[in-house]
Amino acid sequence: MTAPEPAPAWTTTAWLNTAEALTLEKLRGRVVLLHAFQMLCPGCVARGIPQAQRVAELFRGAPLTVVGLHSVFEHHEAMRIESLRAFLHEYRVGFPVGVDAPGAGGDPIPATMRAYGMRGTPTTVLIDARGRRRRQIFGVHDDLLLGAELQTLLLEADSLPDPLDDAPRAPGCDEGRCATAPADG
Amino acid sequence: MTAPEPAPAWTTTAWLNTAEALTLEKLRGRVVLLHAFQMLCPGCVARGIPQAQRVAELFRGAPLTVVGLHSVFEHHEAMRIESLRAFLHEYRVGFPVGVDAPGAGGDPIPATMRAYGMRGTPTTVLIDARGRRRRQIFGVHDDLLLGAELQTLLLEADSLPDPLDDAPRAPGCDEGRCATAPADG
Amino acid sequence: MTAPEPAPAWTTTAWLNTAEALTLEKLRGRVVLLHAFQMLCPGCVARGIPQAQRVAELFRGAPLTVVGLHSVFEHHEAMRIESLRAFLHEYRVGFPVGVDAPGAGGDPIPATMRAYGMRGTPTTVLIDARGRRRRQIFGVHDDLLLGAELQTLLLEADSLPDPLDDAPRAPGCDEGRCATAPADG
Amino acid sequence: MTAPEPAPAWTTTAWLNTAEALTLEKLRGRVVLLHAFQMLCPGCVARGIPQAQRVAELFRGAPLTVVGLHSVFEHHEAMRIESLRAFLHEYRVGFPVGVDAPGAGGDPIPATMRAYGMRGTPTTVLIDARGRRRRQIFGVHDDLLLGAELQTLLLEADSLPDPLDDAPRAPGCDEGRCATAPADG
Repeated sequence: MTAPEPAPAWTTTAWLNTAEALTLEKLRGRVVLLHAFQMLCPGCVARGIPQAQRVAELFRGAPLTVVGLHSVFEHHEAMRIESLRAFLHEYRVGFPVGVDAPGAGGDPIPATMRAYGMRGTPTTVLIDARGRRRRQIFGVHDDLLLGAELQTLLLEADSLPDPLDDAPRAPGCDEGRCATAPADG
Repeated sequence: MTAPEPAPAWTTTAWLNTAEALTLEKLRGRVVLLHAFQMLCPGCVARGIPQAQRVAELFRGAPLTVVGLHSVFEHHEAMRIESLRAFLHEYRVGFPVGVDAPGAGGDPIPATMRAYGMRGTPTTVLIDARGRRRRQIFGVHDDLLLGAELQTLLLEADSLPDPLDDAPRAPGCDEGRCATAPADG
Repeated sequence: MTAPEPAPAWTTTAWLNTAEALTLEKLRGRVVLLHAFQMLCPGCVARGIPQAQRVAELFRGAPLTVVGLHSVFEHHEAMRIESLRAFLHEYRVGFPVGVDAPGAGGDPIPATMRAYGMRGTPTTVLIDARGRRRRQIFGVHDDLLLGAELQTLLLEADSLPDPLDDAPRAPGCDEGRCATAPADG
Repeated sequence: MTAPEPAPAWTTTAWLNTAEALTLEKLRGRVVLLHAFQMLCPGCVARGIPQAQRVAELFRGAPLTVVGLHSVFEHHEAMRIESLRAFLHEYRVGFPVGVDAPGAGGDPIPATMRAYGMRGTPTTVLIDARGRRRRQIFGVHDDLLLGAELQTLLLEADSLPDPLDDAPRAPGCDEGRCATAPADG
């Protein structure tokens, strides 16, 4: 059993839904769900992105940030940033989305996708509050298991300072009561 | 903020899918998901029971027991034990199910349902490894949140001895890696 | 190619959701969708009965009658009429339902199911306005095809007097316009 | 009650999934389901296009042609033909798709959409074998009703020669038997 490694840095050419580029360093202290997708990937549209949106909504009081990564490895002309921007608007995607940088030396696989060794889209990566990659899932993941895995990382994160806010803690139970995310009262 | 209270004892007249009656005492050391349902409750059949089945399957390597409770508060003649037994068979429900005892003094609400103050079916109760009620949800609960809540209790349970088995730990992440439930490899 | 045969008569022991027993003779002049089910058949509950309910609702202005047939061939004790009555109530099934009569001479297959040669539940039978069996489907049927098949029989029925009412015609197009069912304006 | 009017001609700038441009004249003798969509319209992607695909598949033995119309009235830069081509590939859309021509004089509504008076996307138009518009639905339409409406037009079409093929007739019942679409045996 090896210790978890730091998550590779993100290499991006643009960001949408955020005023400034996001980096793992800026998010230190928070759990990160990185959702790599393509806007013309049917499984991403039907399943992966809606799941990421639900995570962002249900855990919005927790020290968790959902980050999209548009990792295009086919049909590059079809998924330029103008199309992506319209896609995010029409599908009401509110979380920040980075555009994965083109692969080096003609590599059709974009740079971040390559650095993470992703096998395709959708891919969900869970990064802990110390910036370490803890889980990487290719394809759609079960909500029950994803919830459990996120909670593990959130409980760990509770002992670290959250750099971004003083929001209420993760959903879950403490000595006195079990709190759901804000949406659930 | 008050400390969590011990979960009320179960009062049942019969058990299915188990050789012997289950009690909270016997399950001490394990997290318990108690799913109260009626076999003719559409929301239970379409949503609640399938969720409980998925929990039982996905967390089967964890110190977690899913227990059904057939709490009939209407149409008593329609949901006798012969019907319940056939229902469990046809719907492939494999977890133990207790039959909630009739209410005292002509109370139409069965005894355990009354003791827990349940408002109807389906109701999901989460009980920690110390036998304390930590969460009670009337209606269908979100998988992501349920997964997170179960994980909180499972991580707590890790520090207690499991009376029933030495199965692998809960899905989730440790220092070395993130393990899913056995079904996910 | 043989001419369609008259649909076998129904042999029932009771009826629910109707003041009097239904027979094919009484329904002559109307298209009949006969839906054979068991209340503890998961495919019937999840798919077949909801489809029959939508047909009853969407075509309620047409000369069409949806008839349920409770054809129990297993777990007889579990699905007695008290249970069936509660089931219809809880699932908001409003169409008439006949209870298929026990098979003769100890046959576990009930009488009408045997007469129609049904292979199981759910089974949907389409009977034309002349009382002839035109289609029999075991398992769930596609809505698009079912709609097309019903419409064929309804257009034929238009040339026959409707014994039960003077309701508006079937959904569909005439020389002047295309009318949807009442629910669709 | 007025007689149905001829469907307006289609004004397009390109076609995909077909060797040559389609016109209503070429399709005379066949029923036409015209499905107007935008590739970034969530309701089209999730519901409308899959329904059109199922119609194309289930009725493929019938004198029926499903035609897509890409009618972009917002985010024009985001849905250029390169993007549309990739979209059709990724979503396995096999029916012919015309690109609606830009509106005249700066009209943001494309030409065919304007000529048909469509209110948005998805819109489904049913055109009979004589080239007359018989039904126009904005939003998602019920499969049962759509099947019934198509069958009305297909039965009418049976008396006209089919210009494109001698394929088997529509699903439905004749004097001898009820035939499903080829996929259903």
